Amino acid sequence: MILTVTPNPALDVTYRVAGLTVDAVNRVAGTDARAGGKGINVARVLHALGVPATALGFAGGRDGDALRAGLDARGIAHDLVATRGETRRTVAVVDPAAGTVTLLNEPGPVITESEWTALRDRVESRLPGASVLVLSGSLPRGLPDDAYAMLVRQAERHGVPVVLDADGVALRQAVPAGPRVVKPNAAELAGATGLPGLEAGARLLRRDGAHAVVVSDGPRGLYADTPDGSWRAVPPRVVGGNPTGAGDAAVAALAVGLAEGWDWPRTLAHAAALSAAAATAPLAGQVELAAYHDNLGRVSLRAGEEAPQCR
Amino acid sequence: MILTVTPNPALDVTYRVAGLTVDAVNRVAGTDARAGGKGINVARVLHALGVPATALGFAGGRDGDALRAGLDARGIAHDLVATRGETRRTVAVVDPAAGTVTLLNEPGPVITESEWTALRDRVESRLPGASVLVLSGSLPRGLPDDAYAMLVRQAERHGVPVVLDADGVALRQAVPAGPRVVKPNAAELAGATGLPGLEAGARLLRRDGAHAVVVSDGPRGLYADTPDGSWRAVPPRVVGGNPTGAGDAAVAALAVGLAEGWDWPRTLAHAAALSAAAATAPLAGQVELAAYHDNLGRVSLRAGEEAPQCR
Repeated sequence: MILTVTPNPALDVTYRVAGLTVDAVNRVAGTDARAGGKGINVARVLHALGVPATALGFAGGRDGDALRAGLDARGIAHDLVATRGETRRTVAVVDPAAGTVTLLNEPGPVITESEWTALRDRVESRLPGASVLVLSGSLPRGLPDDAYAMLVRQAERHGVPVVLDADGVALRQAVPAGPRVVKPNAAELAGATGLPGLEAGARLLRRDGAHAVVVSDGPRGLYADTPDGSWRAVPPRVVGGNPTGAGDAAVAALAVGLAEGWDWPRTLAHAAALSAAAATAPLAGQVELAAYHDNLGRVSLRAGEEAPQCR
Repeated sequence: MILTVTPNPALDVTYRVAGLTVDAVNRVAGTDARAGGKGINVARVLHALGVPATALGFAGGRDGDALRAGLDARGIAHDLVATRGETRRTVAVVDPAAGTVTLLNEPGPVITESEWTALRDRVESRLPGASVLVLSGSLPRGLPDDAYAMLVRQAERHGVPVVLDADGVALRQAVPAGPRVVKPNAAELAGATGLPGLEAGARLLRRDGAHAVVVSDGPRGLYADTPDGSWRAVPPRVVGGNPTGAGDAAVAALAVGLAEGWDWPRTLAHAAALSAAAATAPLAGQVELAAYHDNLGRVSLRAGEEAPQCR
């Protein structure tokens, strides 16, 4: 069982608006809502792969109920701590004619001390049966900056490896706790380390405590710095542009690799292939399994390589 | 007891976004949600005036629950028919720096035949205790174009006068049923009659069946064509610009005038004063009672006058 933790999930709402105009009345032609948030998306990908996973995190209010109902409808297992504050929405205003996507991201609730304690208790009770703990996304207001560090140490006490997908202070504070894999994207790595180049940034995070660093770098694929060596895994081609979906799919594959005890080349090939299959899907957490399997044999894996643009 | 009917209510959500940018990620700094829709706003104004009122209409899904909860929290009486479809949202994205308000209006649910029957039954059961029936706003999908006409005839059978605030085909179809007062704004009147000038348009609606026509004309106040004569009621001054709120407040005053048996000059003076007090409030359904009372003595009421710009 893979556990995913999403501290700041969202109800992802999509509005279709033809000719979005600022400072005017816009009629919404169609609406759609689904459970969202990075760890939720990871659980969704794992579910699509047939890998047992449970989504943990927080959910509150009516939109929290809608989020739970959305997971139930898809058969995705979850165990979300009820919060007094209401789960946030993200509204994506899609204008098909103009080809634009305008995101309106609500801030999300303030988590109380007792809600945060309840989440840690929930994680604690499930760690004995877990193969991997995935920690994904931003921290909501109310949680300490070292929230992910606390969860990494908790997992470590149970011998459960952690995949961490975070950025900024939440990432920097968690690295010294020794997560098995951290998965920033290139911009997040540069932001967290202040260093140009994937190789230097990844090396710094490993020196600071991360066992392995896998950097997602858009269509350039993945760069991995691990105890067994470094690799660049480049998928055959990436059409479309859903970077959130691609990153979450890479995290799902990294979790599967850890759970199954795969070596790094195999894990990275799967991560690159799955990530590319997700990048073309319109919604994060969706993957075309046929594209995934098709991609798998065509990932270019090169040892000891850093990002081409950083040489 | 004044009854208001809102066939297409909404949960009115406000997002504060500094520097709204299309095709980018926008962080929402603050959110607010309240029960909305024209008849709901009329009930809110009546409640603020201490006039007993009950809001009827439809509400469904989680946002319908939120709408009911919002009315409960304000102590506004309601009796909304539960619908299978979910109550719509309107999202107002307010950018204080740019001074813009971008509205995203969801379409709302499709009302079923049995839900529409349930609303008419609900109205029927309450008409014996009602002094006035207010019909306000657009018709949702699923309702016939003559929905308001049916409700006007229903009220007529109980001897309950109707104030109708609608436009387009819903207005045109309802006028022959003989509503006591119709309250279009100037643009809606022109749209419904195809005639330029408030006097000609109002005369046509009266000829077609409306007993009286009161046209809201922004800062130029109200123009009324009634069986007792015609008047223009101009408030002292209107600062700010909440035309929805101003129109709904005018309707609330017209309903009070009918319920209390006031003559037209008194009714129109109150309508103009209340409307002006609402136009300055940021949210529809809010009125500053001090401004209302202050305005009341300063409304200019001129008999037999048409809109100055239409002479």
